[in-house]
Amino acid sequence: MSKIKPTEEILCGIHPVREALRAGKRKVYAILVSKERSKPRLAEILECARERAIPVEITDADSLDSITENARHQGVAARVSSFAMVRAEGIVKEMPERVSDRFVLVIETLEDPQNLGALIRTAVCAGVDYIMIPKERSASPSPAVSRASAGAMEHADISLITNTASLLRQLKTLGFWVAGLDGQGETPLFEADLKGNLVLVVGGEHRGIRPLVKKECDFLVSLPIKAGVTSLNASVAGGIAMYEALRQRQLN
Amino acid sequence: MSKIKPTEEILCGIHPVREALRAGKRKVYAILVSKERSKPRLAEILECARERAIPVEITDADSLDSITENARHQGVAARVSSFAMVRAEGIVKEMPERVSDRFVLVIETLEDPQNLGALIRTAVCAGVDYIMIPKERSASPSPAVSRASAGAMEHADISLITNTASLLRQLKTLGFWVAGLDGQGETPLFEADLKGNLVLVVGGEHRGIRPLVKKECDFLVSLPIKAGVTSLNASVAGGIAMYEALRQRQLN
Repeated sequence: MSKIKPTEEILCGIHPVREALRAGKRKVYAILVSKERSKPRLAEILECARERAIPVEITDADSLDSITENARHQGVAARVSSFAMVRAEGIVKEMPERVSDRFVLVIETLEDPQNLGALIRTAVCAGVDYIMIPKERSASPSPAVSRASAGAMEHADISLITNTASLLRQLKTLGFWVAGLDGQGETPLFEADLKGNLVLVVGGEHRGIRPLVKKECDFLVSLPIKAGVTSLNASVAGGIAMYEALRQRQLN
Repeated sequence: MSKIKPTEEILCGIHPVREALRAGKRKVYAILVSKERSKPRLAEILECARERAIPVEITDADSLDSITENARHQGVAARVSSFAMVRAEGIVKEMPERVSDRFVLVIETLEDPQNLGALIRTAVCAGVDYIMIPKERSASPSPAVSRASAGAMEHADISLITNTASLLRQLKTLGFWVAGLDGQGETPLFEADLKGNLVLVVGGEHRGIRPLVKKECDFLVSLPIKAGVTSLNASVAGGIAMYEALRQRQLN
């Protein structure tokens, strides 16, 4: 089996491999298919490989287990170029002052790849334009996150940012409103104005939004929760907030 | 260590044990605490056990691993009475015809305990009155689901139902509107009227809502999704629909 180059990654699972091919953002060097797997669910992947002359290597489940480090590969993997980030500075520069209705999601220090993948999946569905993730203390857009996003990550424009507070200040000067999702937020989500150029900041599982980032939010929104019971999962709460923004923006 | 009686269950993890104590729906026969764990996070649980004279057994991580079958127990477990279901027939009989603004969630054939727990957690937060789950072909309200719900399941009124279509017919005669959440639904979620007595039917991961159940829905709603990209996770989609219902109901 061919070796992985340092700039390569191994994607696995039907959704991540199929969406990487559909999105066309990564180079796909080879598709690896387990000979034990039935073809129907892999048909689109194999058809696409044939059209683009991507080599298909027939292998076995044990080899796929090994190369994917026992991830749930569903009998398919791909050797691909590493996920291409978008430079946040570039996004800020490209945005003319008068651009309207841009929707940026900032995901604060989320350590669990499952939660990060779930948020990215919902963000792509909700039509978020850019996703920004702190470079440190956070899960990064790895093949595991792509799998947790059911491959949606392959379509996303994602930036890793070094200074979230500074970025928020820049975006505010470009006419963005910055809303932070916070359990103690004083603005009920359904009373917040989420139209126009919007940055939604979603907090991590445990500590929420960091104080220096919170300070840059124009307002903090919270979801109504039945008194004293429990809290919402971070990725569900983020999903509800993104779709409330989408609802308001569709009304325009 | 004490044996489990057939009608007993082992709950584990800080949230499920704490919420079982707070909700007071189960009998708690004993609390098991690992001697390796620091006390602060367990303080409320131990305090509550002392007040109610519930025996606390100090044990070790290996024994907890064994009794919880290697679940993520966080150093605490409890021997409790099995989860008490609510009889769906009882709910239907109790509901006078004129009752208004009842919110019932029907969860169709969801096999993954994680997804079921996530939906129950959101339902409890959104103030859903009753949760109904098919008795067959579905995950049931087990200790694993309680853990996946971060303990929210302990506060929920849950019925296991044998004939979903028949139950929906009964609820419709009582003045409920039945909305099914379906990827192909013809009514956009944000255009649907979700006020008043409402049954929301959420489909499973793979097959969605079964045809005989779908037939009983007054309307099928779908979420707007950016063209051709991907689909939403079942528990996130369900959470967005429940909170849209909550939003509309708060406007009253």
